[in-house]
Amino acid sequence: MNRSNSCPSHQSIVSGSDFLQLNILDAPVGGRSHWLAQQLRLAIADRRLPVGSKLPATRVLAGELRVSRGVVTEAYQRLIEDGHVAGHGRSGTIVVAAPAVPPEAPPTRPVVAPSPGALFAAEPGADIFDSMRAIPARIDLSPGTPDLAAFPRSAWLRAERSALASLSASDLGYGDPRGTPALRHAIANWLARNRAIRVDPNDILIVAGTAQTLSLLGQVLRDDGISAVAVEDPGSLGARQHLRNQRLDTPPIPVDHQGARVDVLRDVAARAVLLTPAHQFPTGVVLSGARRRELMSWASDNDGLIIEDDYDAEHRYDRPPVPALRSVLPNHVCYAGSVSKLLAPALRIGWVLAPPKYQDALVAAKRFADLGNAALPQHVLAQLMGSGEMERQLRFLRTRHRSRRDAMVDAVRTHLPEAVIHGAAAGLHLMITFDATFADTDLAASALARGVKVQPLSWHSQHSPRPGLVLGYAANTPTAISEGVATLGDVLRHLP
Amino acid sequence: MNRSNSCPSHQSIVSGSDFLQLNILDAPVGGRSHWLAQQLRLAIADRRLPVGSKLPATRVLAGELRVSRGVVTEAYQRLIEDGHVAGHGRSGTIVVAAPAVPPEAPPTRPVVAPSPGALFAAEPGADIFDSMRAIPARIDLSPGTPDLAAFPRSAWLRAERSALASLSASDLGYGDPRGTPALRHAIANWLARNRAIRVDPNDILIVAGTAQTLSLLGQVLRDDGISAVAVEDPGSLGARQHLRNQRLDTPPIPVDHQGARVDVLRDVAARAVLLTPAHQFPTGVVLSGARRRELMSWASDNDGLIIEDDYDAEHRYDRPPVPALRSVLPNHVCYAGSVSKLLAPALRIGWVLAPPKYQDALVAAKRFADLGNAALPQHVLAQLMGSGEMERQLRFLRTRHRSRRDAMVDAVRTHLPEAVIHGAAAGLHLMITFDATFADTDLAASALARGVKVQPLSWHSQHSPRPGLVLGYAANTPTAISEGVATLGDVLRHLP
Repeated sequence: MNRSNSCPSHQSIVSGSDFLQLNILDAPVGGRSHWLAQQLRLAIADRRLPVGSKLPATRVLAGELRVSRGVVTEAYQRLIEDGHVAGHGRSGTIVVAAPAVPPEAPPTRPVVAPSPGALFAAEPGADIFDSMRAIPARIDLSPGTPDLAAFPRSAWLRAERSALASLSASDLGYGDPRGTPALRHAIANWLARNRAIRVDPNDILIVAGTAQTLSLLGQVLRDDGISAVAVEDPGSLGARQHLRNQRLDTPPIPVDHQGARVDVLRDVAARAVLLTPAHQFPTGVVLSGARRRELMSWASDNDGLIIEDDYDAEHRYDRPPVPALRSVLPNHVCYAGSVSKLLAPALRIGWVLAPPKYQDALVAAKRFADLGNAALPQHVLAQLMGSGEMERQLRFLRTRHRSRRDAMVDAVRTHLPEAVIHGAAAGLHLMITFDATFADTDLAASALARGVKVQPLSWHSQHSPRPGLVLGYAANTPTAISEGVATLGDVLRHLP
Repeated sequence: MNRSNSCPSHQSIVSGSDFLQLNILDAPVGGRSHWLAQQLRLAIADRRLPVGSKLPATRVLAGELRVSRGVVTEAYQRLIEDGHVAGHGRSGTIVVAAPAVPPEAPPTRPVVAPSPGALFAAEPGADIFDSMRAIPARIDLSPGTPDLAAFPRSAWLRAERSALASLSASDLGYGDPRGTPALRHAIANWLARNRAIRVDPNDILIVAGTAQTLSLLGQVLRDDGISAVAVEDPGSLGARQHLRNQRLDTPPIPVDHQGARVDVLRDVAARAVLLTPAHQFPTGVVLSGARRRELMSWASDNDGLIIEDDYDAEHRYDRPPVPALRSVLPNHVCYAGSVSKLLAPALRIGWVLAPPKYQDALVAAKRFADLGNAALPQHVLAQLMGSGEMERQLRFLRTRHRSRRDAMVDAVRTHLPEAVIHGAAAGLHLMITFDATFADTDLAASALARGVKVQPLSWHSQHSPRPGLVLGYAANTPTAISEGVATLGDVLRHLP
């Protein structure tokens, strides 16, 4: 920075009628000291008054500005309190520190979306889904979100109005870290109706989605001496990343047409396992009754913990969903649910039902994490659940998602006849695999270059024998689905 | 449990026209299998069909119920998928596992508020503020909340309506873990206007309040090899608990009339310090200009980190607040702010401005914690900040809080003339101390037994020479304040 032109030299007296071109007429009546202090701060910040320079004597500046000396004394006093200037007795008042100056050119952390090629070239890191989201695409077939266009905005607003009208002042203060009693009560009823789970509302902990459940539970399990949580393979990359961030190993358990291989689980050195029994992610398999019984034996034989991620269990199209494992095994299952697949991920509301021995530790972890979820959205959600609005929404989504699933199955059969479609008629996505040897990351990269976003199966696999894709259909119209899958077919035929 | 009366014996065939008193007329048309499966699940859950019992043959039950055999087969199939029953070929269909039965008598974790005596008898634990909140009181003089009755409910609802009308569907999906661009932009402008901080919105991280800031930052600091964060003494008990939960030591730095003693900080083995410079909690002292300069030297000499908890800086009644330390020392200050004292703690929204070297790690920690704050409230808050509504709210609160502070000062002078009042004309609470030797926990316990809730100073002190109280006034009317303090005076005179 060139200080020689615009700035006074070290220790020179800055004064004269032109001092900072101050015009007292700019100051609000009754706020002159405040105004003057602010002008001086700005001048110090942009180096018009550099560190080491001396301010005019109060008497002199008061005369120049035609204000009382008290106005200037008061302004200087504020700068002394700020720490910007210091009074040095007869030596006068000296600038001793400057506020930060903002960067002059582009922001320090420009947000640049990575190229499709770069995105899929390396092992997916912790920010992979953020990077993926940052890339614009014509058709987004990423899995994991329901039809967000169907979010019940009017019902939400009505419930919010009603909540704001009925809340007491203390409801807006710090609250129970477990969540509001109203929502825990509503969720207990929801789980009884929809998931065959009977639970005392006091045993429900409201969290900021299943991501937070894994983070909090990871801490609690480590404190309990557990160092590994077995995971399904293929299984959710995001969940695996969350567990690993808690310094937990994630030994893979293969998934076949009946779900996770419990016989393999028996051979793995893990006292805990993360499962998606109702609709396995990403294969879409429903855990069979035989496997459920094997799991129960495993849990009792090994004092094992099953983390049941019930992420999209309500979205079954051919028949009612299977009951949650939690409903038969409350002492060995930590059950995790959320509204991310029922309403919207952006709400960041979920719930966890821990086995009795972990409940207190989990509440403590939630308290230390953030003192509990925000209250207003909990009251709104409790109303939607209590009024039947949530069930209406779910019925609507089921119909819509089912027709979109059908559209995607048709499109795959037409445009990707070589693909094998996996999984039950359920959920928000389907998995396809190819009996071939190409890298599915190349397919995903080429598709993204053509404006179609998909996730390669290998991202979600620890040992992946076959290339594949995980395709979300819930958030797309049948037309977009058909067009997107047609592009995939075209891309596949032109893969090098 | 007495199974002998109501339950069939092991492996006996349950059948006959009275089987479970099922009445097919109760079943919805087209949903008979679903209904039957549900009835069987209920019977298994309440042990009318215990584990080991055999279900009637499908042909038999179909005849009894006068439905097609397919209806029964389908219901049994669902129970097999659940894992509740198993087909054993010619041996028939056997119940093999039961869903959980809810506790029959009182809930497992009854919520009982502790007695005032018990609450103050022991060292305060991690759940102390929850326990405190659970005890009802006529007058609550706990510090830490603004006047929640003044929460701008109409403005919030208007902003919510506008947000719901303008958001795109993808705004309801998973988002940037740093927070919505709109809110980060609005906060950058708020901080420039109100706290003399100039910051790029990309360098702001939205969090779930300052509690989460401490949790996330604690993880990041430990990963950077920092094992201790010095804290003010007296200083916030809650903040100290959060740091200790992250396995950080919290060496105490005494506070005098100029704020934290930076000379002591120099002698302490800590590379980081948590401060409340604008209005120290709980003393109410404003960090002096001289100390601010000492701090700056400490930070540059030791590559030190200052965590600036700016919790109620905007609430200054006699003059504009001093600028934030962050405004002069961006590379050494991690700045934490929130809306808890501006709007309501229940919103769980805060922000953190980390030094460049910690920004990426802090974003990663937030991603792993919960994938980012909920989006809707962020959009609402951005609107309130952008429209000037927040400044209106702040002006309103300042006037109201100031008169309540005056009322409390008057009440203390009248009813507790022996008390010394500390701190600047600012904030939401004041601290009083007594030149005496009684235990302030006894005073707080006796006051609570008389229906007045206060926090003893000793809770917030690591070394406490004098008894004292921390008294919140913001959330009470002048009448309640006067009545509460009068009770305190009466209690004090009758202390054993």
